[in-house]
This record gives sequence, C-alpha cells and structure tokens, in this order.
Amino acid sequence: MPTPLVTRRDLLGTFLASAAAACAASAPRTVDAADLRTIYAEAERRRAEGVQRLQEWIRQPSIAAESRGMQEGCDLTMRLARDAGFGVVERIPTDGHPGVFATLDAGAPRTVGLYFMYDVKQVDPSEWSSPPWDAALVDLPNLGKAVMGRGAVNQKGPQAAFLAALHAVRGAGKKLPVNLVLVAEGEEEVGSTHLAQIVRHARVQPALAKCMGVFMPDASQALDGTVGINLGAKGDIELELVASSEKWGRGPKTDIHSSEAARVDNPAWRLVQALATLITADRDPAVDGFMDAVRPLSAAELAMIDMVARTSDEATSKQSLGVARWAHDVDYRQSLVDLCQKPTLSIEGLVGGYTGPGGKTVLPHRAVAKVDIRLVPDMTADGTIDKLKAHLAKRGFGDIEVNVLGGIDEATTTSADSAMIRAEVAAYKKARIDAMLWPRMAGSWPGHLFTGKPLALPAGHFGMGHGDRAHAPDEYYLIESNNPKLFGWDTAVRSFVDFLYELA
Amino acid sequence: MPTPLVTRRDLLGTFLASAAAACAASAPRTVDAADLRTIYAEAERRRAEGVQRLQEWIRQPSIAAESRGMQEGCDLTMRLARDAGFGVVERIPTDGHPGVFATLDAGAPRTVGLYFMYDVKQVDPSEWSSPPWDAALVDLPNLGKAVMGRGAVNQKGPQAAFLAALHAVRGAGKKLPVNLVLVAEGEEEVGSTHLAQIVRHARVQPALAKCMGVFMPDASQALDGTVGINLGAKGDIELELVASSEKWGRGPKTDIHSSEAARVDNPAWRLVQALATLITADRDPAVDGFMDAVRPLSAAELAMIDMVARTSDEATSKQSLGVARWAHDVDYRQSLVDLCQKPTLSIEGLVGGYTGPGGKTVLPHRAVAKVDIRLVPDMTADGTIDKLKAHLAKRGFGDIEVNVLGGIDEATTTSADSAMIRAEVAAYKKARIDAMLWPRMAGSWPGHLFTGKPLALPAGHFGMGHGDRAHAPDEYYLIESNNPKLFGWDTAVRSFVDFLYELA
Repeated sequence: MPTPLVTRRDLLGTFLASAAAACAASAPRTVDAADLRTIYAEAERRRAEGVQRLQEWIRQPSIAAESRGMQEGCDLTMRLARDAGFGVVERIPTDGHPGVFATLDAGAPRTVGLYFMYDVKQVDPSEWSSPPWDAALVDLPNLGKAVMGRGAVNQKGPQAAFLAALHAVRGAGKKLPVNLVLVAEGEEEVGSTHLAQIVRHARVQPALAKCMGVFMPDASQALDGTVGINLGAKGDIELELVASSEKWGRGPKTDIHSSEAARVDNPAWRLVQALATLITADRDPAVDGFMDAVRPLSAAELAMIDMVARTSDEATSKQSLGVARWAHDVDYRQSLVDLCQKPTLSIEGLVGGYTGPGGKTVLPHRAVAKVDIRLVPDMTADGTIDKLKAHLAKRGFGDIEVNVLGGIDEATTTSADSAMIRAEVAAYKKARIDAMLWPRMAGSWPGHLFTGKPLALPAGHFGMGHGDRAHAPDEYYLIESNNPKLFGWDTAVRSFVDFLYELA
Repeated sequence: MPTPLVTRRDLLGTFLASAAAACAASAPRTVDAADLRTIYAEAERRRAEGVQRLQEWIRQPSIAAESRGMQEGCDLTMRLARDAGFGVVERIPTDGHPGVFATLDAGAPRTVGLYFMYDVKQVDPSEWSSPPWDAALVDLPNLGKAVMGRGAVNQKGPQAAFLAALHAVRGAGKKLPVNLVLVAEGEEEVGSTHLAQIVRHARVQPALAKCMGVFMPDASQALDGTVGINLGAKGDIELELVASSEKWGRGPKTDIHSSEAARVDNPAWRLVQALATLITADRDPAVDGFMDAVRPLSAAELAMIDMVARTSDEATSKQSLGVARWAHDVDYRQSLVDLCQKPTLSIEGLVGGYTGPGGKTVLPHRAVAKVDIRLVPDMTADGTIDKLKAHLAKRGFGDIEVNVLGGIDEATTTSADSAMIRAEVAAYKKARIDAMLWPRMAGSWPGHLFTGKPLALPAGHFGMGHGDRAHAPDEYYLIESNNPKLFGWDTAVRSFVDFLYELA
C-alpha cells in the first residue's frame, strides 16, 4: 500500500482497503455475455499491439514546462484517437499549447465524456534505472512485467488501455454501446492553464453538454489490490511570493557582495518576515479569512472516512509517506478528516540568492517562495489570492509580489448517486473489486471545468490497472502481474469495456 | 567609481578618493635610480611574456568548489614560482586541496611574506561575453586592452604582475632587495578551510616568523583612479541552517506530494519560523549576545571614515551598488561607519523543495538557508556559532542544523604605523598616488592567520593595477589603459618593484 489516501488523479485509488462500496448500487443494462467474451478475447489477442501503442506514446516526450515536443505530442494524440475510431479529431488552439477535441458517434442513446492529457512531468534521466523515454518492458520484483517511462501511469498507460478497449470492441466486430466526446490537453502538468479555452470552445462545450459525465482513464488499483473512487478533489493554486529590491525600494538591484549587508537591506530577510506572517505557530494557514469557507464534512462523508480509517493501516500509511507523526499529533482518523477537509497553504520551494553547493558570499536582490494552496469547496482561487494579498498589504508587505503560476480554480464534487459513479462501482464489481468511496481527494484535477457551471456534470476517474511513481523516477504501468493482489493490462482494458457497457 | 568601499580583497582599493594619506610616512631606503630605471625597462621589454604567463594561468581552471583542476593548478603555481626565481618550492598537503610553500633567498637582511591563491570562483560560461577560460585580450570601452577570464583580477592578474616584477629584477641582472616567503592555497574561494594547515606547517611557520609582514598582490586602483589601503578586515562564517524532517521528527523523509500538507508538517515552514527569530523587525541580527563584543570605532578610525565620506561620492556609490537607500535610511557617513563597525548576519541563499522554473507540487523534506556572518574584532567564529545554536535551542529550534561551510575565524587588524603599511604608502606615492587608509574592510580574507597569534605580523594587500567583476561574468584585469585615470600592466609591475625596494 504505497500511500493511504488519494492525493491526485495520478494516484487515484492507491489507498482503499477492500470493503463493500457504501452508497452506490449499479443498475447494469443487460449485455450479451457472449459478445463480451468475444471482446475480451479480442483485447487479449491485441495485447502486444496495445502495449506497443503505449510505448510509442511514451517515446514521444511532451513536457509543457519545457515546451518540449508539444506539437509532436498533440499530433500523436490526434492520430491515436483517429486510429481508435474517433470520427472527428480536431486540434483546438489555445493561448498556450493546443488541445484535442474528438468525437466518436456510435449511434448510441448515451454519450460519455473523456478527459485526456498528453503532457508529462519533467525528468532527470540520471535518476532512472531504465531511461525515461525508452518505455522498456522491465521486470519489477513482486509486481511483474511493467512498462517503465515518464508518463507510464500519469497518464499514458491508463489512456492507452482505454484506447485498447475501443480497438477490442471494433476488432470484435461490435459497435460501442455509448458515444464518446474526448477532450485532451497538453498543459495538465503546468496547471491546466488553458483547458478552459478547450472545454468552452464553441464546438466542444455543446458536445460535452450532451454527456452523462466525464471521466479520465486511470490506474486505480493500489499496491495492496484495493481500489477507491473519489467523489471530488480540492482546488489548487500554485503561486510565487517574490521579495525583490525592485518592488521593495530597499536592497540592491542585482546580487552584490554579502559584506555590504552591514548597510544594505536583504530581500531574502524580507521574504522570511512576510512568510512568517502567513502561518500560526503550529504552521496552519494564518491568512486573514483563509478558513472562512471551510465547513465540516457531512455525516455521509464522515462515514466514508470511518470506513477507510477502520479498514486501512495507519502504520503502513505513515511508512509509505515517510512520516513519523501527523501534524498536530492527531490520530489516524483525524488525519483522514484533515486530508479531506482542510485547505492548505504550503511552501513547495524556496529559491533565492546562491542555491548551489557550498556557499557564495552574495547579498541577493530577490528571493522567491513557491507556494501551493489547496482549496476546499466554496473557496475560490481569485478570492483566496485576494485574501492573501490583503493579508500581506495589511502587515506592510504590499511590495511582496503574488505571481500565480497556474492552478485549479475550485474544488470538484460529484454525487455518489450519479449514473457515472454507479457505473464505476458496477464495473469494478465485474473485476471482483468492491471499490470504496472517498469524499474528496486531497490533490487536484481540473474536473471543476466539468462539474462547475455551465456543464455541471459528474466527473471523475476510472480504470483497473496498477502503476506508480508518477512525477518520480522509474514511473511504471503494470502489464503482466505476478502479484496475486494486482491485475495487469488485460484486466485494465476489460474494465474499460465493462465500464462503457455499464454506462450504456 | 564602481563601489565606494572595500568589501573584499579582490575588490581591495576600489573606492577611495584621491587625498593625502593621513597617518603613514614612508622611510624609503636609498635606491639607485639608474638600477630602478634598468629594471623598469626590463619589465616593459618582458610585458608580452608576463601577460602570456597570466593567460596560461587563467587557462588552467582550478575551482575548489567543484574539485576541478586542483592538482594541475597547484602544479602550475609551483612551476610559476620556480620560474620566477624561488629556490625552494614545495607542495604542502592538507586535508583538503594542497598548498604551496616557496622561498627565495636573496641574501637580504629583510624577509617579506607573500600570500597567493591558485583557485578561482565558479563560472556560468553562458553569461560571459568572452569565454572564461580563453583569457582573451579584449578591448573594453573607456578602459583599454584587458585580459578577460575567471581569475583575471581575483587573483591571478595581480599575482602574475608580481611574478613579472621578479622576472624583471632578475632579467635586469639585479638581486632582489628582500628575501621572499610564499604561501599559496587552493581553497580561498571555499573559505580557506585548510590554510591554517599550510601556515602552521613545521617548515612554513618558522619561515613566516622571520617576515616583516605578509601581503597579497592586488589590483588596488578603482575605476576613478583612487587607491585605498585596508588596515583590517572582518572575519567571516559561511554556514547552512538546515530544517529537515529527519532532525525535526516531523514532516516527510523525502519530498512527497504537496496535497499531504493537510496532515503532514513542512520543514520549509520550520525553517522560515527559525529564521524569523534571528532578526529584528528592521532585519538587524537578533541572535542573543551577537552584538556583545561590538565596540565603537576609535577616533583615528572615525577620522579615516570622515576623510572618505568627505572625498567620495555617495550617489555614485549607491548607483554602483544598485541601492536606492541605505539600511535604516542612515546618511552616507553613517553607512560607512556601519560598514566598518557592524557585524552582519545575512542570508546568501535559500534552497528548499522545488527550485526550478514554474511550480511543482511537492512538500519538501528539507530546506536550507545559506547564511553569511561577518565578524568584527573580539568576535570569534566558534563563539558566534555557539551563540547562534544556543539562540535557536532556547526558542525550541534545537533541531535546526548549523553546518559550517567555512570561513575566516576572526577579524584582522594591522597598524598604520607598521613598516609594511608605510612601505605601501611610499610605493603608491612613486606612482603619484596618495593612497587613503581605511580602518577595516567589510569583507574578509584569511589574514588573521598572519596577524593573529603566534605570528602577529602586519598583513594586507598591495599593488597598482586595475580590474573588476571578481566572482561575476566578464572578470578582467587591465593591461593597456586608454583611461587617463587608470594605469595598466607596466605600472602594476613597477609598483611591485618599488614596494620591494621600499620594504628593504
């Protein structure tokens, strides 16, 4: 069990102990079992082809943060969509990197939305045991054969498995039971800055409006075999707080010799002083009004947490996070409540002056704190940033720049009673998994563009399959499991087939 | 006038307005004027050879911080010493990079000590207009022909000019008027960590004990033509303050996903809180007992400062530092007093978590502040570090690591009445320069190993010549001046000849 609770869509479902799903009961349409067997067999027959497709996808790096391979990554995604049967495949330009819009009209009564990403996180190849763009098939102890490479689990593996499901249905001579609307973006790893321009595009929004929900293919099976379903996510703001001589009117315009500190002000101290006002002695957010919108979890949400607290293991969770104790020394259940309920204000990076090995005697002209803010429902990005700015200004730190880098403007919420979540629960049951519901992941994804107005759709993640080390070296997606608790590629592909039929 | 007051040996003498030297009167020995003219002529005849020697020296990078080219740099320094006439040239191993010890016995009654460094600061070649290891001769507007490269002025240019003086004396068929004892180190840019092992070596210390003083060749002429003589320097400690989950017992063992901040402590906040206790609201040092040893400047020292305040230009000084106002909004004279008198506690760098472009949603396991402390007389490095540790522990931050990176254990002081300072003043006068005395540079050099016990020698810097941008891109040392206020290579070499005769 690598991490006890879902923190981000790429880690979705990496936590829950096997237990009966609490709230959802599926209402599957009758499906011809023989048809399904034919499709399953076709999927297995096409396994090598599907894995090769995934490898090809990984071998095309598309890193938005470095503007690397974006055009190529977008083109490849469009081709993969066409190959999988999407009839209309269109590039959607944005003010940033382009998106993809595609539709597959199966003549079915129901339409389902899909959300893909074609960008991946940066890499430091020296940290990898197998080169990140090789997408090699490697043997992992206690796991089995896996594709290793950047994007393997976040998110190309699950997306490729979903496309393989479409190939299998078509290859088996069947028609899809639902129509599909796909939106893909290339800026997920840099905060989905322009996804709204794709989702709200004149041709895209009407197509999405017809959908019963939107989901992202995911590898939801945790190392202990459990699967979770998130009913929401926190919003997220990434920003930089910058103290600079230029804005402050004190200190040097460029880095100067540190000995001048006897008579020249230091913006790094300025930053420290401003940062210190943002937290309480216990390092909780102390920004004026920051906690105003926070409300307690509902009884139903607390019941889900109780279930997780009872059926998962605190020691394993702490161990996998490398944490000796929770903040405030709370117990496990409270740590789970905090994870769902609390907004956060956290430093993700400090950069100022000399940052290399050893020392260098400079007096910096500028210092930066990279800050990550997680929003719970009823908090908005703009409102929170305004509060942060007002807090700083009130304390005489109005010169500190607040530069928003990107983010997810608000939290998302999807009802456990929605048809999509019911279909997820039912599809997992087909794989003999009792998925457990979780009120709100502590991480973020841009699902608010689907769950928020005007679309107001259910949105979430779905997919059997296992992988790990998203954003880290040696990211992998399991193909052939030798671990009795885990399923590989075939089950992942099959789960998408099942899900589509459940949705129908 | 690039900077109004000396902050470091590599910038020595870059500030003072022309004015009569206040305290020192030289007592030169009679020197045969014809002999001197012969030596000057020989120096000019050998200019190309001397400049080529400097270029060869620069083309051998020796960067202690990167353990790059250290062996080669030591070997080259030894060869250059031998070539210049040193009879005994010996490598002195240390626990770090080796030093050099060399003696030149001229059979003279007096012996003078020399302090060299063979290492240079790191470079980012992309920032240079001429590659840092090319040592190209470039034309600089309003300056003239200069050698550009890392180490050009800090300190290979001045050292090469000094060696050229020795070549000139020998080439002119003369004997040196003084004996020489040379110590060179390769770790000056990383805090001279092992210089004490060289200076206190069984063969080196007795040789140094015979010296009338120790000096480092320098390029003392500032852009406005003025030259200053420092009578001391502050001590310096470079250290890292480290907040880590490991020592704290809270937070994650490695960087984890930032969403966990809802229930996992963040060492970067811990660092901010600890740092905030180290300064007053006005960002002066607030470490308990830090200022105890600070004493006011003497009347003689204040007189030197008054002279500088009267004869140098505040606006130019502020402009060259890129500073709009001094700390505490003091006037110019007080800023000079602060520069001499105040110890400092300054952040030179902040590093923690994600430090690259944009953001990355991590919760760091460790955050570091690189801190620079400048010591005035009667403060010791050990005592100051003890006070810092006690201050942190008293406030509950005993888990913050205090890792000393290096430094200069204490301030240095040399009397204006010493024979060496008198000789400096007299030698500058020969170049028609009235050097101005300055009580204590705000920067540091390891002269305390010479001025402190047991040697207790006068120690300082000397040399005509001009260069700039030490530690910065496009570092240069002027060879042929086209600026009426500045002198080039020939005058620098000649100043060393004059100085040696004045010392005799």
